[in-house]
Amino acid sequence: MISEHFKNMLGQKSVIRSMNAKAFEQGEKIGHENIFNFSLGNPSVPAPACVNETMVKLIGETDPMQLHGYSESHGILEVRAAVAAYLEKTYHLPYKADHVFMASGAAGALAHAFRAVVCPGEEIITFAPYFPEYGPYVHETGAILRVVPADTESFQINFEAFEEILNEKTAAILINSPNNPSGIVYSTATIQKLADILYAAQKKFGHEIYIISDEPYREIVFTGVDAPCISSFYDNTLMCYSFSKSISLPGERIGYVAVNPACKDAELIIHMCTQISRGIGHNCPASLIQLTVAEVLGQTADLSVYEKNSDILYRELTRMGFSIVKPGGTFYMFPKAPIEDAGEFCNKALEYGLVIVPGDSFACKGYFRIAYCVPTETVERSIPQFEKLAAFYGLGGK
Amino acid sequence: MISEHFKNMLGQKSVIRSMNAKAFEQGEKIGHENIFNFSLGNPSVPAPACVNETMVKLIGETDPMQLHGYSESHGILEVRAAVAAYLEKTYHLPYKADHVFMASGAAGALAHAFRAVVCPGEEIITFAPYFPEYGPYVHETGAILRVVPADTESFQINFEAFEEILNEKTAAILINSPNNPSGIVYSTATIQKLADILYAAQKKFGHEIYIISDEPYREIVFTGVDAPCISSFYDNTLMCYSFSKSISLPGERIGYVAVNPACKDAELIIHMCTQISRGIGHNCPASLIQLTVAEVLGQTADLSVYEKNSDILYRELTRMGFSIVKPGGTFYMFPKAPIEDAGEFCNKALEYGLVIVPGDSFACKGYFRIAYCVPTETVERSIPQFEKLAAFYGLGGK
Repeated sequence: MISEHFKNMLGQKSVIRSMNAKAFEQGEKIGHENIFNFSLGNPSVPAPACVNETMVKLIGETDPMQLHGYSESHGILEVRAAVAAYLEKTYHLPYKADHVFMASGAAGALAHAFRAVVCPGEEIITFAPYFPEYGPYVHETGAILRVVPADTESFQINFEAFEEILNEKTAAILINSPNNPSGIVYSTATIQKLADILYAAQKKFGHEIYIISDEPYREIVFTGVDAPCISSFYDNTLMCYSFSKSISLPGERIGYVAVNPACKDAELIIHMCTQISRGIGHNCPASLIQLTVAEVLGQTADLSVYEKNSDILYRELTRMGFSIVKPGGTFYMFPKAPIEDAGEFCNKALEYGLVIVPGDSFACKGYFRIAYCVPTETVERSIPQFEKLAAFYGLGGK
Repeated sequence: MISEHFKNMLGQKSVIRSMNAKAFEQGEKIGHENIFNFSLGNPSVPAPACVNETMVKLIGETDPMQLHGYSESHGILEVRAAVAAYLEKTYHLPYKADHVFMASGAAGALAHAFRAVVCPGEEIITFAPYFPEYGPYVHETGAILRVVPADTESFQINFEAFEEILNEKTAAILINSPNNPSGIVYSTATIQKLADILYAAQKKFGHEIYIISDEPYREIVFTGVDAPCISSFYDNTLMCYSFSKSISLPGERIGYVAVNPACKDAELIIHMCTQISRGIGHNCPASLIQLTVAEVLGQTADLSVYEKNSDILYRELTRMGFSIVKPGGTFYMFPKAPIEDAGEFCNKALEYGLVIVPGDSFACKGYFRIAYCVPTETVERSIPQFEKLAAFYGLGGK
């Protein structure tokens, strides 16, 4: 029988998608050039030239049987070794190929991490605000996603609420720093405290508790921001990475799970990932794409535009009277809406051509997300519109 | 907690993998040049030149933001439209883009098809001999895989046994023609009879029953063989395709689900696939690979080697006294072992350097699989070894 479960999911409209549909309607009215689309987390700068150069080189120089041939379900050994060497050099942890599993983007990486270390019925704790896809990602594993309310002062971790939710059924903590949607990077103090609490909880409950660290924005960190490597603070960490954001390859769907070498059963977890793949129909990433990223590790797109955009928006919007925790990275910020209903606020913003997303979908009501992965010129042109919006709500800015 | 379920799966050794480990040991003893590896279903001919040419062209001519950018989770619209147009032209069914979902290879395609039209607790019927991965593929969906014993006379369908197993819980029939491991292609008569039975069963049980048709070998059909398009015979058919075998791109992990336009809720099923992706961490195939296959639809690698190898092996092995149903396609054949225990037979074969796989893993005891996707020269050199093996078992050949 057709699955009612997945059929019903179709009925749950994505807020981002419906904002975009409304934005299109508004564009028809006021001219599409007057629409400032800050709704999508899609890189706005191209991949660096080395990506295409590497691809063309590989195609020209590699035997097609090898280039396009089957790889192990872990991923290509040389690629895993290259990723491990890069991580070792960068984070000073003794990663080897056996700690790395190549996955189809962050979604693929997370799907394996969840299933490897969390059993159906166990709990995964995450922190608001969080990427809404975590809901369906976790639901399908049979585990339960529990959400710690946001610390809206700093968008670091609300530890008091966290310790109330942490319990013997907790199998993993899912974190995302630099964070979508807040743009905040967890500080050394935050990560240290999280690790301390988890080490104590492991002792208290007598079982492992894992950190599953979703790090697609790892390299998008602004000048001077404290951005600790999470795996360095806690042994039982599974790092889930994607090449989508920092090197602008979202369509090529490539990422990895890297298990901290000090994690209990680290190599076993990587081997288990291959078994998990069989059940969920995962195929390791396309071989050409694997071989390509192995040669450009550590390279990024020109990420400076994101910091520039962030600076402009933060400066201008705070001047206007918006309350914002200053982003430390990513291409998002998460200001407080001047009214309680962020949905209503975002609808109003659309009248001024501003496409922004209410925080409700990120489990944080009363806030809104600006995705400023757009040309700086778009940001600059949008400022007068934000100004009008602020004026409409009588914000006390200058 | 670490998943005992996936941990235990690691303990279940793959027969093919263990045959390969033994083959390596044997190679160390008798020289690796004297090992004839017929264990792996890996294409032995390179992708046609048009694949690399298209890739290089796309890289050179496409804006990198578009080339490497996010695609819809269904797959790139133009690619889906191209696949639909190709299917329409080839099979004369009115496929449109809305009937096509791009997936990461056949495993990805099947993972979506199962979840779309089969609910947990319902049954999927397949026919022995069958690809052993169907076990874990189906298990993880919560559905139950039921197996119809082989018709070893023809490796077509054992309809008597099928009709006994068909029941009101049957949600889908999983077929694979051309077949791994038998090499047999289901005839028009077989497909027509299957369709007739299923139309009657739908009426009797009052619900849809789907055919999930796993077709990675669709283009590898030998001269003069009747190879009907399954979707043409039965409306509720989900075709699952992979570009791995016929165009030799196994590492690039690309395929699709094409729902027969006449299938009940055809477009809905494709949209449901995008929801299924969210739960299993599927990402649609890499954009460069999608764009590439869209331009080379209908092209294949030089598949003639497989028919040539098949002819030699069939002729020589039947001459020696082996009993074989003549393959109609793929790069497999599935002869009867001269003793009851095919595992023991395959171990003996290894002493002669012949790496073949016992049929037990394909749910068909007493048979063995030869994967002849190897250079013809390897096939020719292996004949004297098969001869010795036949002599050892006193087969009555000439």
